[in-house]
Amino acid sequence: MSMPRLTVQEVAKHRDSSSCWVIIKNEVYDVTDFLSNHPGGPGILLKYAGRDATAAYEPIHPPDAIQQNLTPSQCLGPLAQSAQSGAVPDIAPELERTKDEMRVEQTMKQRPPLNQILSLADIETVAKAVLPYSALAFYSAGTDDEISLRENTRAFSRFFFHPRVMRPVSKCDLSTKILGFDSALPLFVSGAAQANLGHPLGELNITRGCGKANIIQMVCGYASIARSEIAAAALPSQTLFLQLYKSTDEEATVKIVQEAEQLGYKAIFLTVDAVVVGNRERDVKSTWTLQAEEGKSRYYNEGDEEEKTNYLGKSALHWNQSRGLDSDMSWELTIPWLRSVTRLPILLKGIQCIQDAVLAADIGIDGIILSNHGGRQLEYSLPPLEVLYRLRQQRPDVFEKLEVYIDGGIRRGTDVVKAICLGATAVGLGRPFLFALSAYGEAGVTKTISILRREIGTAMRLLGASSIRDLNPGLVERVDWEPVTRESKL
Amino acid sequence: MSMPRLTVQEVAKHRDSSSCWVIIKNEVYDVTDFLSNHPGGPGILLKYAGRDATAAYEPIHPPDAIQQNLTPSQCLGPLAQSAQSGAVPDIAPELERTKDEMRVEQTMKQRPPLNQILSLADIETVAKAVLPYSALAFYSAGTDDEISLRENTRAFSRFFFHPRVMRPVSKCDLSTKILGFDSALPLFVSGAAQANLGHPLGELNITRGCGKANIIQMVCGYASIARSEIAAAALPSQTLFLQLYKSTDEEATVKIVQEAEQLGYKAIFLTVDAVVVGNRERDVKSTWTLQAEEGKSRYYNEGDEEEKTNYLGKSALHWNQSRGLDSDMSWELTIPWLRSVTRLPILLKGIQCIQDAVLAADIGIDGIILSNHGGRQLEYSLPPLEVLYRLRQQRPDVFEKLEVYIDGGIRRGTDVVKAICLGATAVGLGRPFLFALSAYGEAGVTKTISILRREIGTAMRLLGASSIRDLNPGLVERVDWEPVTRESKL
Amino acid sequence: MSMPRLTVQEVAKHRDSSSCWVIIKNEVYDVTDFLSNHPGGPGILLKYAGRDATAAYEPIHPPDAIQQNLTPSQCLGPLAQSAQSGAVPDIAPELERTKDEMRVEQTMKQRPPLNQILSLADIETVAKAVLPYSALAFYSAGTDDEISLRENTRAFSRFFFHPRVMRPVSKCDLSTKILGFDSALPLFVSGAAQANLGHPLGELNITRGCGKANIIQMVCGYASIARSEIAAAALPSQTLFLQLYKSTDEEATVKIVQEAEQLGYKAIFLTVDAVVVGNRERDVKSTWTLQAEEGKSRYYNEGDEEEKTNYLGKSALHWNQSRGLDSDMSWELTIPWLRSVTRLPILLKGIQCIQDAVLAADIGIDGIILSNHGGRQLEYSLPPLEVLYRLRQQRPDVFEKLEVYIDGGIRRGTDVVKAICLGATAVGLGRPFLFALSAYGEAGVTKTISILRREIGTAMRLLGASSIRDLNPGLVERVDWEPVTRESKL
Amino acid sequence: MSMPRLTVQEVAKHRDSSSCWVIIKNEVYDVTDFLSNHPGGPGILLKYAGRDATAAYEPIHPPDAIQQNLTPSQCLGPLAQSAQSGAVPDIAPELERTKDEMRVEQTMKQRPPLNQILSLADIETVAKAVLPYSALAFYSAGTDDEISLRENTRAFSRFFFHPRVMRPVSKCDLSTKILGFDSALPLFVSGAAQANLGHPLGELNITRGCGKANIIQMVCGYASIARSEIAAAALPSQTLFLQLYKSTDEEATVKIVQEAEQLGYKAIFLTVDAVVVGNRERDVKSTWTLQAEEGKSRYYNEGDEEEKTNYLGKSALHWNQSRGLDSDMSWELTIPWLRSVTRLPILLKGIQCIQDAVLAADIGIDGIILSNHGGRQLEYSLPPLEVLYRLRQQRPDVFEKLEVYIDGGIRRGTDVVKAICLGATAVGLGRPFLFALSAYGEAGVTKTISILRREIGTAMRLLGASSIRDLNPGLVERVDWEPVTRESKL
Repeated sequence: MSMPRLTVQEVAKHRDSSSCWVIIKNEVYDVTDFLSNHPGGPGILLKYAGRDATAAYEPIHPPDAIQQNLTPSQCLGPLAQSAQSGAVPDIAPELERTKDEMRVEQTMKQRPPLNQILSLADIETVAKAVLPYSALAFYSAGTDDEISLRENTRAFSRFFFHPRVMRPVSKCDLSTKILGFDSALPLFVSGAAQANLGHPLGELNITRGCGKANIIQMVCGYASIARSEIAAAALPSQTLFLQLYKSTDEEATVKIVQEAEQLGYKAIFLTVDAVVVGNRERDVKSTWTLQAEEGKSRYYNEGDEEEKTNYLGKSALHWNQSRGLDSDMSWELTIPWLRSVTRLPILLKGIQCIQDAVLAADIGIDGIILSNHGGRQLEYSLPPLEVLYRLRQQRPDVFEKLEVYIDGGIRRGTDVVKAICLGATAVGLGRPFLFALSAYGEAGVTKTISILRREIGTAMRLLGASSIRDLNPGLVERVDWEPVTRESKL
Repeated sequence: MSMPRLTVQEVAKHRDSSSCWVIIKNEVYDVTDFLSNHPGGPGILLKYAGRDATAAYEPIHPPDAIQQNLTPSQCLGPLAQSAQSGAVPDIAPELERTKDEMRVEQTMKQRPPLNQILSLADIETVAKAVLPYSALAFYSAGTDDEISLRENTRAFSRFFFHPRVMRPVSKCDLSTKILGFDSALPLFVSGAAQANLGHPLGELNITRGCGKANIIQMVCGYASIARSEIAAAALPSQTLFLQLYKSTDEEATVKIVQEAEQLGYKAIFLTVDAVVVGNRERDVKSTWTLQAEEGKSRYYNEGDEEEKTNYLGKSALHWNQSRGLDSDMSWELTIPWLRSVTRLPILLKGIQCIQDAVLAADIGIDGIILSNHGGRQLEYSLPPLEVLYRLRQQRPDVFEKLEVYIDGGIRRGTDVVKAICLGATAVGLGRPFLFALSAYGEAGVTKTISILRREIGTAMRLLGASSIRDLNPGLVERVDWEPVTRESKL
Repeated sequence: MSMPRLTVQEVAKHRDSSSCWVIIKNEVYDVTDFLSNHPGGPGILLKYAGRDATAAYEPIHPPDAIQQNLTPSQCLGPLAQSAQSGAVPDIAPELERTKDEMRVEQTMKQRPPLNQILSLADIETVAKAVLPYSALAFYSAGTDDEISLRENTRAFSRFFFHPRVMRPVSKCDLSTKILGFDSALPLFVSGAAQANLGHPLGELNITRGCGKANIIQMVCGYASIARSEIAAAALPSQTLFLQLYKSTDEEATVKIVQEAEQLGYKAIFLTVDAVVVGNRERDVKSTWTLQAEEGKSRYYNEGDEEEKTNYLGKSALHWNQSRGLDSDMSWELTIPWLRSVTRLPILLKGIQCIQDAVLAADIGIDGIILSNHGGRQLEYSLPPLEVLYRLRQQRPDVFEKLEVYIDGGIRRGTDVVKAICLGATAVGLGRPFLFALSAYGEAGVTKTISILRREIGTAMRLLGASSIRDLNPGLVERVDWEPVTRESKL
Repeated sequence: MSMPRLTVQEVAKHRDSSSCWVIIKNEVYDVTDFLSNHPGGPGILLKYAGRDATAAYEPIHPPDAIQQNLTPSQCLGPLAQSAQSGAVPDIAPELERTKDEMRVEQTMKQRPPLNQILSLADIETVAKAVLPYSALAFYSAGTDDEISLRENTRAFSRFFFHPRVMRPVSKCDLSTKILGFDSALPLFVSGAAQANLGHPLGELNITRGCGKANIIQMVCGYASIARSEIAAAALPSQTLFLQLYKSTDEEATVKIVQEAEQLGYKAIFLTVDAVVVGNRERDVKSTWTLQAEEGKSRYYNEGDEEEKTNYLGKSALHWNQSRGLDSDMSWELTIPWLRSVTRLPILLKGIQCIQDAVLAADIGIDGIILSNHGGRQLEYSLPPLEVLYRLRQQRPDVFEKLEVYIDGGIRRGTDVVKAICLGATAVGLGRPFLFALSAYGEAGVTKTISILRREIGTAMRLLGASSIRDLNPGLVERVDWEPVTRESKL
């Protein structure tokens, strides 16, 4: 408490494995003993030895990571003078900017102007150019060979339209209600983690863009911005939903739910497709690839422990996720328990087959998202659009009992319209909003909504539909051939 | 009226945004105040400031664009001496010829001789080499990702023949009747806009080529040549049809219809698949790409208005189309109204599903074109051949009540024969004729018809058919696999 | 008769369009007046003006082409001294060897040894390297976009085996009977034209190779070697079939049939899928491509006649074919007429649908080849294997009334076995034998048979079949997906 | 016996075809007379004339090859001083290291560390880099055009999951029983020949890796390590199966079976899909390709004997296999005979259709492997997964009578889970273990099992399954489209 504050000069002396100090948010920590326990391996920690590690630390660690892992005596207290990220250039300037950082800076300058962005694919192209290598790997990764990731999008190409003509469409109302809440379009932002990897304001870009456009945002359980901060940034009339990851620590989960309810979040989407973390090789490999590209020596952890290192060491997010996820949820216990702690509507995110959709309807769940987690969890989980199609054909009664949404692979207004025709109340988009804010911040979010509004409007008018109610299964046909699309290529 | 004529030297002084004059068809206009209203942005206007803009203006503006947008006082009167396009070389010679214009000039010289052109694909290859960049973009663009554009053609590859042998075919009659009018072949020229982008004589190339070959021409509502001029170029016996875009200005539409009837046009094809303009990104993007290639600085319109700029600014054609299109046509009102103003047969162009085909038949429409506007309107509208196939299978009765045509994707004689087998009276070709006249003018049109005549004749003889009447559904089988074609590649 | 023989020096003086003489097989002809009538255009004739044209003339002209086109006075008589091809080097040596001829000479030296040839694909690769450009174009061309050509082969990839195990197969008899004649394997050489384009001994390579291997040869109606010469080269026990093209000149056809019968040919396969010549663009274009590659100026025939030039000018073969083909054959007249002039069994080559197979069976035809002429006639004619499959499923009775064969696309022993399983008595191979003799002469033919023998034997043993009789439809399944094969690529 | 030992100097004098001696395992042989009988041709023998040939000889010859082919007088006795491979550098040092050997040495040094290996595909990539050219050809070859090889893997991509959620899976038991023997995972090592081509310890790597992980190893009939040596390397509790190739020499086969029984092998898998050797062109061609790459002159055996040379000469393995394989096994005789000589359970490896599976069940066979020998035998044999799917649908009763396994194409944990869902008791993997030991020896085997354990565990948990018993056909759907996978490319 009253100990003298440490200077950056003092900290800078402790820069190897014999004594390793780091600065995080103006606090100094002695991580010497923790080196060998660091799930990401000691190498990454040593990179920041004697320096400010805040910029590298924050995006990928949960808020309580330090408390969970360091003893009080390892917390050496506040820094003498405020050190912002990169504020110790005299010590190790050559480490400050990697090749990848320089590339990002360069490509950011060459972004096309927003008025030359016509499609979500255009934004994605920009995002892929300007995102840091490992952030892109985290955002874009699918599981295993990314079959489900690709098939999610390809599925839309098998559904063609039966457009109706000679119907008045000059007035075309794209608005709808989602769980009773107004939405300007039949879509919402689906939960997707760690928006700050792409933009320092993280999820706030989404909140602000959605507020102006009257689009509902589902806030991810692993959002990089606190739920309260997001709620504070929202307009009074703006609707927020919470995506919930149930932890084995039920109290912690209850706290999250009740805080969200208090903050004005309007519904709880319990994630059910992530009882363990999927095998996202692109993400795991990104560290090594990046190290190799930077020409840095690699740190290897061979031997019995290698597997843990591979899979838990990638990032604290992975680590945190797999540490606390409740793998023992059940229909019998989990739903009643959740109902007992909140009055908010409860929905399930990650239903992947007809039987579970029926189960959800039977026990009075308010809604389900047909989703395979954007192809990030079980490889060869059916594309959500295909599940929707089967559900509509085989159990149309389910749609009368709860609201059905899908997410995964939606990139065009026609994709949205197809899903609505087949019975979805709305669709969720995740990655497109991460790409949008990474490329252009809040303006990218606004642009994304505006593109979708235009595309949905055009598609509905050309279909002869002047309101969401006019969309029905008869307007869509699943064809028996496979169109050639961008996803046809590996 | 009697004011002194302005000289090119005088005009050349007004070449920036403080005072901007342009010459169009030997008339001088002050567009200074109009700069900020120009749908294409001020940049393109300023490019021609102080100069003759006729060559750039004409192809993409409707005849009345000046009257609609400038006040009488902004029309400064005729030029002192006739200035043909490019006649002011002393002022801004360096602007006269772009890289793209030089490329076109070069490739035009290298065209293969017509007797080495064997197929419509050969002509298309030449056209793609010799067309100006933005003209090519306008002609070839499909909507969104151009799935329907590509699938229109690919659809033909799923239909194979059951050829019959040992049938006398030395005499093989390819002629037929379309709406009762003689046609040398079971095909016609379908409406396609702005033929002058590819050749200065525009649609007249088609009129003259078709006249000699006894092929019917449907004149597009956005033809670059006046309907009267086209009628004047036609032979006495030649049949012309009118493709009609209904405007919100019904009087204007009536005027068009009645003028056409008077000029001897024989039928009205009301366009029903274009109540709004499709999202043709290739076309919209072409301006920016071209500017970048020319090394010119780009003019950006960022901010709230960007969307309008993107979509309305591309060309006056787009602007004009979307401005006046009637998006509120209906079966109940539009057809009776149209019947009340003309005695010509009324047909619908752009029917895309069975239900609407049945509706058309039920209310006594004379014929329908199954068409998705060449893949330029609603992405994922079914390929017309697939709609034809379903209609033939599910509602064969419709073919007895009206004539059915298809257009979109037809490139070979076998394509024509397949459609006729499946019940079409004739097929329409649009782009192939634009490509033909762009590559070789009227001779290209003649060559196109001659190739199709040879290919249809060969296909019919090898099928064992000696007349159009011999073609029937039994000669065609829809297979359950997907042949590898040129369209299999992205 | 008794006129003085002309010397090469004399001939060499007549080398332009004012007076153009050529030497063909030691006879001198004045073709000055014929220049403008030459279907290939005057250019090709002028190339050989004043020189020996035998080498260029022979492969592509029918034996009677001179008699048909020149008057007696244009035949100037025999050359004073024998001029073999290329025997006038002093006059125009620089014309003697084109780039293409030099390429062929070079690649011939680099052929792999025969014992490194494992498959028909290996031989085809060699053939494609050593064949003259235009010969390759003629052999390999399919019609239009070569869809049927490619699909013929791809069709086999949709048929998988149900192999049976635990069946004695050490003794495995591959022999069968075709029309009652012994055959070592269930295959024969199908008719294919102009073997001398690939090898000077032409079809004799096939005759000799087949004789030793006890394989039946069907001699093409457009063989480059006289039927009598082929018959003379055959072993006493060797079986030859005749492929017949019916001419409009019925007497000429009768003469061919009766000569064949007298020469010991055992069956007549009447070609029914070639009433006109298919649109083989690869073949037609080869002349221009070759001229461009040789850097020679091109001769253009623009104007009204261009179409004729394109299609008739390619080669005398085309010209001859299309000139005399009888396009008016019929079931009612042609079959009885043919029966009236020969006692040989009559079969039909080129049946392409079930209905015609049934018709053939009903009128007592001895056998049919399901064939689309190797994809060279009607584009989108179903692959023969698919027709066979449908015929077997829908009309198994046909197989009891006549023998059914297929040809087109067979390249592996498994292809042969699949066809036999599905009911074919035997299969025909055309192009593979042309490629074989082009690459290695008679040894290539022998090798081709030997590869097929090994592959068929291996496939049958691994299927659990010890004789042709063991092959049945239950061993084959048509699958509903499309394997990736070489033909999946364009 | 007592003759003086020969020196390397003495041996080195006999180095051409007039007198050719070689050293093998310190014994000297005179192979002069054998040169022309060597199935691989004299060339390869002459390469080692006067030198130690052990390194080249051992991997590809059966233990008794010398005894079978040389007379006692051709066996000249032991070498005076021990000559290990390469111990005669003074004679022909330039032959010692080929380009390929140097490449292998280099790539071995560049292998990524094991903790960066995430998938079986990663290991395969390493193996393909470090394997000697001809060893890779032998391991990776499929028959003919490798269609079945590729389709084996592609088949899995047509089966998607119906994951169930809200089921407790924190405890997930991956263990099962195979023929009553414990297995940590529902998989085993399937028989695959010649592991020593990839690693000097050969199959022992597998034995040791499997022992530690409690995975069953099926020892190939053509293993490079003696069955007794493998048994000796196994843990006491470890289960070994024998893959049996029945020879025409029944006594020899009996000896093998009874020795295995005595050594503690627990079951006999009789190979039924290899009555003759498949046409593996990649393997056969590898010798020539390698020779060409090394710049060595090739030895050609043209003429009548070329075919035998091609197919028998590749390697003694081929030679040996095809020499002794019993092609006359039958259900009636072979099974009773085998039962009469052993009490071990008898299973059949290589069942490829439903009828044979039913036959096997009816006669009381203990289990079958649906297998097409990894695509190495009959081209177009159905993928085993497709046979399993059909068997499960059409004859579910078979699964109650015997255990069903599949092998071929399994590369992911999801592949394993799909097969188990469809009724398989376990799956076999062959090539992946050969690649694993070639790349990393025993550690590679351990890594392979560990990857599969992780992937199977993740897949089961995400499917909602907590034990093997939870896997059932309802969790899998065969879809009607074809996902784009690595195998979609040629």
